[in-house]
Parts: sequence; structure tokens; C-alpha cells
Amino acid sequence: MTKIKAAIVGYGNIGRYALEAVLAADDFEFVGVVRRNVQDIPVELAGYNVVDDIEKLGQVDVALLCSPTRAIGDLAEKILSLGINTVDSFDVHSDIVALKNRLNKVAKERDAVAIVSAGWDPGSDSIMRALMLAMAPKGVTFTNFGPGMSMGHSVAAKSIAGVKDALSVTIPLGTGVHRRMVYIELETGAKFDEVAQAIKADSYFSSDETHIRQVDSVDALKDVGHGVHMTHKGVSGATHNQLFEYSMRINNPALTSQFMVSAARATMKQASGAYTVIEIPPVNFLQGELDSLIAKLV
Amino acid sequence: MTKIKAAIVGYGNIGRYALEAVLAADDFEFVGVVRRNVQDIPVELAGYNVVDDIEKLGQVDVALLCSPTRAIGDLAEKILSLGINTVDSFDVHSDIVALKNRLNKVAKERDAVAIVSAGWDPGSDSIMRALMLAMAPKGVTFTNFGPGMSMGHSVAAKSIAGVKDALSVTIPLGTGVHRRMVYIELETGAKFDEVAQAIKADSYFSSDETHIRQVDSVDALKDVGHGVHMTHKGVSGATHNQLFEYSMRINNPALTSQFMVSAARATMKQASGAYTVIEIPPVNFLQGELDSLIAKLV
Repeated sequence: MTKIKAAIVGYGNIGRYALEAVLAADDFEFVGVVRRNVQDIPVELAGYNVVDDIEKLGQVDVALLCSPTRAIGDLAEKILSLGINTVDSFDVHSDIVALKNRLNKVAKERDAVAIVSAGWDPGSDSIMRALMLAMAPKGVTFTNFGPGMSMGHSVAAKSIAGVKDALSVTIPLGTGVHRRMVYIELETGAKFDEVAQAIKADSYFSSDETHIRQVDSVDALKDVGHGVHMTHKGVSGATHNQLFEYSMRINNPALTSQFMVSAARATMKQASGAYTVIEIPPVNFLQGELDSLIAKLV
Repeated sequence: MTKIKAAIVGYGNIGRYALEAVLAADDFEFVGVVRRNVQDIPVELAGYNVVDDIEKLGQVDVALLCSPTRAIGDLAEKILSLGINTVDSFDVHSDIVALKNRLNKVAKERDAVAIVSAGWDPGSDSIMRALMLAMAPKGVTFTNFGPGMSMGHSVAAKSIAGVKDALSVTIPLGTGVHRRMVYIELETGAKFDEVAQAIKADSYFSSDETHIRQVDSVDALKDVGHGVHMTHKGVSGATHNQLFEYSMRINNPALTSQFMVSAARATMKQASGAYTVIEIPPVNFLQGELDSLIAKLV
């Protein structure tokens, strides 16, 4: 069997876990990492290609884009224009349609495939929401996040003047309402009350119940575990009170990167263009022969 | 918008709920029921076409096959050969690949689409199992059924000599192990101990913990509520202890028929051929415009 040649673009938190997920998948061949810094090579990359331009890697079937969300659009467009498939975990929900339609154009032109927002939310959770609606088209779905560290909120808190380091933990209160527990280290001379007020006034926090706690070490509290509890109560046909629940407790970057690798596999089976995960046949995420997967899973 | 013209073939328990689900879907037009008995028309079908041959209904885009599982193969083949799409809830897990491959041939020849085994298990549960594997490819998945009435086990118990009526309720004991609670009415003269022994010896029951209870009225106990609790504990990349759970508490025929109607919608978007539900992009089960669904769900 010809293996899928995968490159990792960007080698931060997600990139490191993506390496593990690619190496764990028998049907993939890891061809190398693309990153700005090609001098200081982490030990686990010794023996692999580390380059500053994907074109230096030779043939690449699919690139796992592990760069920050704001860089994804330009990066994906550039790599798709080389005829290389892309997968990302772009996570700004309100901009996904625009990203997909932008990438769809270049992907079709260059006979490549992009799967966008293939993490867990957006990502696997999106598929769950679609499935729940297919089972009970009327009714309310709640997605409750956490408890777990929110990357976006932590960065927002850290950017407040006087904050040396910050960790924002999302606490689910049910029905899609969340509490933010924000742990901060202060810069010398910063006043806790003023900093706390500034955090609470920030648009990331202003509409949620937010508690600020000063700590000696934010790093000592960091844990990348996260979770979701999703509920759907709805109507199938004319029958009310159909009840559905989905929950998970997971290592966040490990799940994100694993789902990206599963989506990378799926890019090999799609017609050229850009897709969100709800447009992909679920079996295409999986390794194995179709009839065997049907016999095992259906 | 052109509505999807749907017929219901077979008008038992599932057929009745399928009627409700078709009527509840704005994008469908109900064109009639196909059944053997066209004389004794139930009140809810007054004003609709009830015929004994689908060709008498005029144009039909998709037929919801609500006949017993053992009849599905021949029935689907006949209807596909007319160029009409089919959806069924065929539920013999071990025969699904064969059914799909049989129907794939005629569907391709006649430019039609079949989606097989589109109930909840096989059906929506199958998609959950695929999704859990996409998130954590290694690990064990358990599907726990119930508590709820098992149609197959109830029929098996009723077929034992001396049994006038029977209800078998599936009780989940965890890790995919189930208890069978069997409630029976006896024929006059039948001996409880002999009947109970015969039920326990039947292949439907012999490998499970089975309890038999004699009751005055089986009918007084019947309730079509059912449920599932699925767990997956596995490995994403190299990260162990990723935990996933899915559960539902539902009216069984209402969910089955709703998912069949959602699949009927999806038949309109597939290339000709036969498919299981894990081969269908989840968004195709849903009513609405693609970009709006992405914006809402992804």
C-alpha cells in the first residue's frame, strides 16, 4: 500500500502532538516539519527533515497546518497552490464559511483538497451537532465546554497590562453558560484590583461570570485536559422528548492533532475543493478497507 | 424549491412513524403508502394514496422501506430497478455488507441511490462508532443497549411453544453485557417451568443472563422507549486515557423512522450506488442550505 506522505507545518504545541499521531498511523509516512527556526532542532525531530519551505521536502500529499489560527488562510492558500492537500484546526467559528470558500477556489484550480476546522470544536463536535439534528431535527442543542484550559481566554488575560502570566479555565455551568476561572501572576508593582477589573472588562470575559485569582506560579496549574458535554433534546417526526448526550474528557492538543491526521487521510478520498468536516463521509477518516470497516462499525 | 417526493412502503409500526416524520419535513412531499391491504385504510391515511404497487403512485424520488428486515433485499432491488431511491433500516449486522453490495449493482445500473441500515443501530450509532475511532483510533468501544424493548428477542420468545405473548426487555449491565427480562403470557395448559427452560435454551437468550416472569398482560407492559450508552476509551496519537461517552433515551420507532427520512434526503445528493450511513457526509442528512448549516453547526 502506498503510504500518505504527510508534512507538519508549524511546530508548537499542536505540531508536537501531530508528529505523534502521524507516527502512530500505519498508513502515513512522515516526510518532515516546516518551521521558521531550522537551527534549534528538538530531540524528537532528530533524523527527520526540518526545513523552512515545504517545497524542500520533495513529494508531500498532505500538510497538517499547526500554525496559529490567524495564519491559516494565507498559509493554506500557498500550500494548496502547490497542489498539496491541507488540513487545519482553524477555530474562529464565525469565519469558517469564508475560509472554506476562499480555499475552495484555489483547491479546485490546483486539483487539491482542503479540510478546514478539523479539530474538536470546530471539528468532531460539529459532526455530533449535525448527527443530533439528523436524529431529532427540532429542539435545542447545548454545547458545554470544560472544565479545561481555554487557550484564547488565557492569551487574552495575559495581554492585560500588569499580567505576567495567565491561565483561564472554562467551567461549564450547563445550558451553554460558562464560568471563567482566571489565575494570574502579576508583574512587579501591578495592583491586583486594577488588573482584575481590566480582565473582567475585556470582551473575552465581560459577558461571563469571571473570577480572578492571584497565584505564585501559573505554570504549576497548567493542564491541557479539556472536555465537552453536549445535550440535545428534541423532536423526531412528531415525537417529543428524544434525549441525546455526548461527553468527552480528553487531552486537548492530542485530540486536535489526532482528528487532523484522520482528516488528512480523508483528503485523499475527496474530489478537489475545500470542505468542513460535516461534508466528509465519516468512514473516510478511518484507516482500513471499506467493507471491513462497515462490517466492524455499522 | 422542488420537494422530495417520498413514498412509504409497508405500513406497520415504523411506517406509521415514518408518515409523521415525512409530514414534519418541509422539504418533503408525501406521495402515498404502498401496502398489501388497500381496503382497510387507517384514519390518518384518509386523503392520501394507498396502493398495492409503487408504480401506481406516479413519480416517486425515494421509497422508505418500512417492511420487515427479511423482506428488504428483494423489495429494495425491485424498487431500485424502477430508478427510485430507497432507504431501509435493515438490522442484521452481519449481512449489511452483502446487502449493500447487492443493491449497489442495481442502483448503479438504474442511476438510483440506496442507503441501507439507516435506523439507529445499525444507523446513527454506527456513525458514532466511526467518529469515536477517528478521535482515538486505538482502544475499546462498548455499545450498551437499553433499558428497552427488543423487538427481535420479543418475537423469538413469542415463538416458543406455550407462549401466548412475550416482551423481552434489554437491560444494560455495562461493557456490552446485557440482561434479558422476558415477560410472558402462557397459553392455557402450558407449564411455566418448561416454557422458561425453552426460552433460556433458545439461541437468542442462551448466552445472556435471562429472567422469565409470567404476567397477566404483556400488552400492559409494552413501551417503545429505548436507549443506548456507548463508551470509547482510547488513544489519540500517543496519548492514552481519552474518554468518550454517548447516550440517548428515545422512542425507538420514532428515531428509526426520523433517521430514515434524514437518509432519504441524503439519497438526493449521492452519486448512484448503495451506501451505508458512515459513507454519507453528515450534513447531507439535514434540511437547509450548505453554508447556513456550516455557519450554524461547525
